[in-house]
Amino acid sequence: MQLLEERILKDGIVKPGNVLKVDSFLNHQMDIEFINELGKEFKRRFADAPITKILTIEASGIGIACLVAQYFHVPVVFAKKAQSLNLDGEMFTSKVESFTHKKVYDVILSKKFLGPEDHVLLIDDFLANGCALMGLIDIVNKSRATLEGAGIVIEKGFQEGGKKIRDMGVRLESLAIVDSMTDDSLTFRPNN
Amino acid sequence: MQLLEERILKDGIVKPGNVLKVDSFLNHQMDIEFINELGKEFKRRFADAPITKILTIEASGIGIACLVAQYFHVPVVFAKKAQSLNLDGEMFTSKVESFTHKKVYDVILSKKFLGPEDHVLLIDDFLANGCALMGLIDIVNKSRATLEGAGIVIEKGFQEGGKKIRDMGVRLESLAIVDSMTDDSLTFRPNN
Repeated sequence: MQLLEERILKDGIVKPGNVLKVDSFLNHQMDIEFINELGKEFKRRFADAPITKILTIEASGIGIACLVAQYFHVPVVFAKKAQSLNLDGEMFTSKVESFTHKKVYDVILSKKFLGPEDHVLLIDDFLANGCALMGLIDIVNKSRATLEGAGIVIEKGFQEGGKKIRDMGVRLESLAIVDSMTDDSLTFRPNN
Repeated sequence: MQLLEERILKDGIVKPGNVLKVDSFLNHQMDIEFINELGKEFKRRFADAPITKILTIEASGIGIACLVAQYFHVPVVFAKKAQSLNLDGEMFTSKVESFTHKKVYDVILSKKFLGPEDHVLLIDDFLANGCALMGLIDIVNKSRATLEGAGIVIEKGFQEGGKKIRDMGVRLESLAIVDSMTDDSLTFRPNN
């Protein structure tokens, strides 16, 4: 998506350790009108999918998912990353390893909010090694909902997550795929 | 706000320990069209305030803040609850005690995203003992931005947070104030 690639080139900052910081517009400060444009693009790409629910994971996925959901007219459910006193009752759980925080955590979703009748679109800001997305897919499978696909804002194409998810047969739409990055250059995978 | 009070009565669940669960529409599953109505109401109440930025705290505040921000046409910044490897550079920090999780954590905001030129509206889903909101107010003060007020979806009027914040002279708008709750009844404070 050209608008997104231009914004990454303008405002993204590459840090050591293959970190791409887009915190000025996507996941710390959030440019709401810009993210609405991403929402329209996700809707265009998944226009044929009978989506009933958008699933994401806290924290930075939530705001993006809420804005995107407006174009699908469906609720958002977000998986939580730790056991909360407020989250009693039956829950779907999955273990996830965080690339950013270098730790393993539980992903938790109340069973009330996902079931066999649902058609789910996963939304997240980043796809790198794919662990967070694998956790969400595991939860969708456990709920026996239908997984319609995953919409990612920025995929790090040089890490294994995208290939792993596509090899599973999941429909994955990444709005920008970064194939390589150095301190002075970013290369995007050409749009297909 | 009548629409909100009706929804709390219809879908809210009271749990032991003064817990009001609204996770079917507000902070686990999110009813996007409903939350947009809350956004319109916040805009109506703060129509005269020259807001340049909405500040919230992860995780459940983020989605609400993003939807609300559409009516103010301003960016959202969200404070994070722990040190993240991606959050380098200079940061505002404040210590917060969580009522829900019974622990103390650091609230962190990059200094890049809040400064003396900003007029800030705080947005969060719940106000109980006020600790999270006090942490955000502390960060606004440290940034030397102007605090225009705080917009809360549900205030627990029987806990001390609301009084504490109002006594500081902060303009606090809570869309619903629960004055008491038992297993079979909820009492709302009459609208002023």
